[in-house]
Amino acid sequence: MVIALLTDFGDYYPGVMKGVIRRISGAEVVDITHSVKPQNVLEGAFLLYNAYRFFPRDTVFVAVVDPGVGGRRKALAIKTENYWFVCPDNGIAYPSASGDGVVEVYRINEAVSELVGELSSTFHGRDIFAPAGALLKEGRLEERYFSPLTDAIVELDLFDLTISKSGVRAMVVHIDRFGNVVTNVRRELVERASPEGVIFNGLEIPLVERYEDVEVGEPLALIGSFNTLELSIREGDFASEFGVGFGPVSLRWIR
Amino acid sequence: MVIALLTDFGDYYPGVMKGVIRRISGAEVVDITHSVKPQNVLEGAFLLYNAYRFFPRDTVFVAVVDPGVGGRRKALAIKTENYWFVCPDNGIAYPSASGDGVVEVYRINEAVSELVGELSSTFHGRDIFAPAGALLKEGRLEERYFSPLTDAIVELDLFDLTISKSGVRAMVVHIDRFGNVVTNVRRELVERASPEGVIFNGLEIPLVERYEDVEVGEPLALIGSFNTLELSIREGDFASEFGVGFGPVSLRWIR
Amino acid sequence: MVIALLTDFGDYYPGVMKGVIRRISGAEVVDITHSVKPQNVLEGAFLLYNAYRFFPRDTVFVAVVDPGVGGRRKALAIKTENYWFVCPDNGIAYPSASGDGVVEVYRINEAVSELVGELSSTFHGRDIFAPAGALLKEGRLEERYFSPLTDAIVELDLFDLTISKSGVRAMVVHIDRFGNVVTNVRRELVERASPEGVIFNGLEIPLVERYEDVEVGEPLALIGSFNTLELSIREGDFASEFGVGFGPVSLRWIR
Repeated sequence: MVIALLTDFGDYYPGVMKGVIRRISGAEVVDITHSVKPQNVLEGAFLLYNAYRFFPRDTVFVAVVDPGVGGRRKALAIKTENYWFVCPDNGIAYPSASGDGVVEVYRINEAVSELVGELSSTFHGRDIFAPAGALLKEGRLEERYFSPLTDAIVELDLFDLTISKSGVRAMVVHIDRFGNVVTNVRRELVERASPEGVIFNGLEIPLVERYEDVEVGEPLALIGSFNTLELSIREGDFASEFGVGFGPVSLRWIR
Repeated sequence: MVIALLTDFGDYYPGVMKGVIRRISGAEVVDITHSVKPQNVLEGAFLLYNAYRFFPRDTVFVAVVDPGVGGRRKALAIKTENYWFVCPDNGIAYPSASGDGVVEVYRINEAVSELVGELSSTFHGRDIFAPAGALLKEGRLEERYFSPLTDAIVELDLFDLTISKSGVRAMVVHIDRFGNVVTNVRRELVERASPEGVIFNGLEIPLVERYEDVEVGEPLALIGSFNTLELSIREGDFASEFGVGFGPVSLRWIR
Repeated sequence: MVIALLTDFGDYYPGVMKGVIRRISGAEVVDITHSVKPQNVLEGAFLLYNAYRFFPRDTVFVAVVDPGVGGRRKALAIKTENYWFVCPDNGIAYPSASGDGVVEVYRINEAVSELVGELSSTFHGRDIFAPAGALLKEGRLEERYFSPLTDAIVELDLFDLTISKSGVRAMVVHIDRFGNVVTNVRRELVERASPEGVIFNGLEIPLVERYEDVEVGEPLALIGSFNTLELSIREGDFASEFGVGFGPVSLRWIR
């Protein structure tokens, strides 16, 4: 039984969350990542969506990218077919939860912070989400802490892009340590267009199946482990070389 | 039962420490942080002080920021009301240990390195502190490894600052991933002064309760999750924008 | 019982591997490092070699630095006297495995990816190496997943350097967070030459036993925790100050 954490907190804050979790629960804690780009809910949602199904049944995911911390956004606990998702109501866990099948939605009450002994306005990871996750791991879905929610929650579409005959306007949703640029263009869309390559910023890039299909140092496009289109340089760093950041990106098909 | 680690070691060295710990002890290891600014004992002490009380009873904290490694500083094991702290004698665990209530102090003998099979002059995290923490977790407070210490240990005051009517000369003790600048000015001091804001380097910054009280991109001051004064930009990076680093900082009150 | 991970994957990808491992196995996962310089098999091999013996018997090491992912290089599981090593066949685990004593070598079949439900061409850490490690941890050395291998595997020599009377041409194999520059010049070689210092890029550096033997801010050479020669600045960052990167380095002895 695992509690899995995904945040934009970087270092230290997750360590404190683990202390809180261990005081309430015997659960093992697994870090998915704490390096989501600060405030980037879309990246957080995309990374969670591509991680959750690899975890065992009954995992409790605590996913916190939370620009609205301390404000009026709700704190949620979402029960799905196989998992629990604990998160702010900003869409971060929506693609994962709806992918697995939402069963019930609860609002987390601030009372959970009594178990921590603190309620700051800046660190609900520690004061709200960590104790809520630990309670659910222990099966303690208590009224004091969780209220059934019937209001709509925030929905987020990971694959919202503009498709034309000549190409696609998509989003860069993740850049990994190797400088691979991960987009939200899905395998199915690429297979339907069946191009031989893509044009990005005037650069012609071949679409290949594996890195070894081009020479070391050459750019390439492929369907990566997220099952979406990625831009890479074999044994190089595409993002640095071409100055690519997060956000919108235009790609034209080469046919 | 948990062994919690806090160091300035960055990556890899903590992984080796975990190997050592697992050879001696069945304990689960939790990382608090390994990103303390290199050699910055004050930051290490501040972060440990703000983490320890969130951990379960009987946690063994191994805290190593150790510019004197290989030299004559002592290695300590401090038993407190609820915890053990294992650390070099440079003050890093002093605020935490005295906060929880010191019960007994031991000197760690170099003999613990026999359990590792190595005694380097540069990596006592592996050779001294990790095995000592694992022994204590197992309840093995053996004479061969631990000697009662009656000498004074190094004391460190986290909240040593200069207060005047017009403001305070304080320390930047931590900068987090979001660029929030964390000072050692405590909530009580701010409440006593009850300002409407602070002046930092000529910049007037309002004191607010939560990020949402200013517009996105605007600077703000608030009492953060450390219960001290922090300087931030809503959804921005104060430290980068204003070039703030660790060390002394002067703040004037706006009334 | 531990599964220990060493990769150049940075953040996130290791979190997904842990999900896969936890679905197959009850093993605790310990991170050694995920910050090996991208594609740098030599650094990965050096770091693994200096970590493995500190882990308990029966640890399964999953070591993945894998520029050939998706290509024709084999995936290996190597049983040694005390451990298992799971890795691509590029030499990364060779020094460790031969150091501990190779008992049997197996090729990992792609069928292990059935347990993941994915087989990408870019992320065999998730699809091949993580499930293989988890299977071995569970003692499931099944024919469907593992085939005995009698072909030669790739050998890698960590200590391949050119020695002359006046000095040595060696490799920088690791640079740590403090800017310590770690070479592959072994203690025995230095002791045989018994110099008083080294000359690096025209800079004379004394060979000392511990950091405290020079003043703060001064450069020094010593035998570090890897039992090889390191170049450092006391409480400073040698690599940044002198612009040192990975790769070949020439050192002359001062006598």
